[in-house]
Amino acid sequence: MIQPTCPLPVLHYDKIVMGHGSGGQMTEELVRDIFAPAFGMPKQLGDAAVLSKVDNGHLVFSTDSFVVQPLFFPGGNIGSLAVSGTVNDVAMMGATPLYLSVGFILEEGLQLDKLRQIVNTMADTARDAGVCIVTGDTKVVERGHGDGVYINTAGVGVQLGLEGPHSGNAKPGDVLLVNGTLGDHGMAIMGVRHGLNLGDALCSDAAPLNGLVKALLTVCPNIHVLRDLTRGGLAAATHEIAQDSGVMIEIEEACVPVKETVRGACEMLGFDVLQVANEGKLLAIVDASDADVVLNTMQAHPLGKEAACIGRVTDVSEGMVICKTAFGSTRVMDMPVGELLPRIC
Amino acid sequence: MIQPTCPLPVLHYDKIVMGHGSGGQMTEELVRDIFAPAFGMPKQLGDAAVLSKVDNGHLVFSTDSFVVQPLFFPGGNIGSLAVSGTVNDVAMMGATPLYLSVGFILEEGLQLDKLRQIVNTMADTARDAGVCIVTGDTKVVERGHGDGVYINTAGVGVQLGLEGPHSGNAKPGDVLLVNGTLGDHGMAIMGVRHGLNLGDALCSDAAPLNGLVKALLTVCPNIHVLRDLTRGGLAAATHEIAQDSGVMIEIEEACVPVKETVRGACEMLGFDVLQVANEGKLLAIVDASDADVVLNTMQAHPLGKEAACIGRVTDVSEGMVICKTAFGSTRVMDMPVGELLPRIC
Repeated sequence: MIQPTCPLPVLHYDKIVMGHGSGGQMTEELVRDIFAPAFGMPKQLGDAAVLSKVDNGHLVFSTDSFVVQPLFFPGGNIGSLAVSGTVNDVAMMGATPLYLSVGFILEEGLQLDKLRQIVNTMADTARDAGVCIVTGDTKVVERGHGDGVYINTAGVGVQLGLEGPHSGNAKPGDVLLVNGTLGDHGMAIMGVRHGLNLGDALCSDAAPLNGLVKALLTVCPNIHVLRDLTRGGLAAATHEIAQDSGVMIEIEEACVPVKETVRGACEMLGFDVLQVANEGKLLAIVDASDADVVLNTMQAHPLGKEAACIGRVTDVSEGMVICKTAFGSTRVMDMPVGELLPRIC
Repeated sequence: MIQPTCPLPVLHYDKIVMGHGSGGQMTEELVRDIFAPAFGMPKQLGDAAVLSKVDNGHLVFSTDSFVVQPLFFPGGNIGSLAVSGTVNDVAMMGATPLYLSVGFILEEGLQLDKLRQIVNTMADTARDAGVCIVTGDTKVVERGHGDGVYINTAGVGVQLGLEGPHSGNAKPGDVLLVNGTLGDHGMAIMGVRHGLNLGDALCSDAAPLNGLVKALLTVCPNIHVLRDLTRGGLAAATHEIAQDSGVMIEIEEACVPVKETVRGACEMLGFDVLQVANEGKLLAIVDASDADVVLNTMQAHPLGKEAACIGRVTDVSEGMVICKTAFGSTRVMDMPVGELLPRIC
């Protein structure tokens, strides 16, 4: 787990390798080749599914499993991730998350005190997010067939608008906004794994973003795209959006907010911060005329103080993401292929 | 995994043991001591949660994780269980299951062919049940931290009646009906594990029961209790119902349908068939005046040909389950404590 795994672009396996869980190109292939044909999935897969109409909107449904290692890290534990992650997936559809289910897979030998701590964190995070944990399930596996605890959460919410933001909706001329510094969660995990003794200077950003999303949609109901920047980070998210919308995305590297400690840890460990996972950060793509009001609203929110405008959408080259570096050069930002940061969430 | 684990009634641990996943008394304690206080859960926990009102009823939401070992067994695989299990949990609320989410936790090294087979089975089972798999997630863990594949499914459905059947609704005078032979799933799994070479004579009953439930509710909208007989089997289900309803339940052992091979395997391996898990069997508790029409409807359905009336509800001793044996004696049927059949689903 110390070294990056599967860095080579070998894509055709007959067995599961760590890269299949990366959220990058290999995960995409697994979904495209095995899951999508069997389950008859649509071409553009968002963070959640929009279901049947209800009284005042559409139901939204999402799920995520959490296998992060270590279970506890600066800024949170697997419980805060498990609630925030699914709340955020529902919120990114422009929906209000309402209910969560929780499935635990416990490994024989897990200390009950640890479980209690995780469960209490889940309850606190759910309370902060205003969602109810309403149903659950517990399974136990023998020692050596788990890793303490794995958690699945599924979330149900209601989307009020006629059409929520989605990854196929970025338009040339739009601008990209993020609600704060990138890379915090991933480097907090890697810091613990590598024994970097930086105290809380590397601290996860895990947080439910539904309150922030609600504030943004209130001032700007027409947000084109909303994405939380989890596995694969900004690189994977922008790549999917560029593909789904048939546009080019240009990122100004100098404008991307990154904490100094995170930048340093990335350099030391050899990570591109734009590929590192976040658990409390979102990308909003909006019409240029809406950019100011959305950015101001982000900055006025406790979870968006360091929000910034980091790039724009153009029509120069369909499906491409480029990054203008601080030195004035331009690099193509590829979809991450394999697994740089295994078990980050 | 060959021997039953945790057979002793030692209940207070500071660590997770296999018995915490049994669906019996220890699972109940874990939920009562750790999950319920944190999440503010109601006293009576059904198979699923009833959520907010929608156009034409109430939303129902449920989840289950599946860790069965082996992944493939006579009559199905982990994929058919993962779909049937959650479909059934939603159906037992008297609801129509509509949508499923799927979360995979894959172990590094899993053959893609096996995964493809499991996924195709899931798709087939979902089609049979008339539900849509609409959202999902994939994580990969290192070799030695999983067991091939674990699957979580969550399900959303709509409950049409004003009040669905629930475990607190059994009344003295009611009768107990099951839709066929008990113990098939559990003994199919144990047969494989113990290398009993009985071919398909031990075969899982895994099946989605929502079609059967719909047929039953059509002829009898006032079914008092519906429960699928999974972990802990008939013993755990009737025990919970007796407690939640404050009634006594009497089971006529001679009336409980059991296949001869299953009975033989239970005797050979030392299991009480009433505690063995089923994945395609339900218990319906109905007013005595409704018993005939419900039983006839079961027997007319492909999944209820061997349906039988197996007992009654009385008010003799609150919270108790007794079993009248074939020899005319009576034994108290306790809630299973620990784990007789680990990783059965």
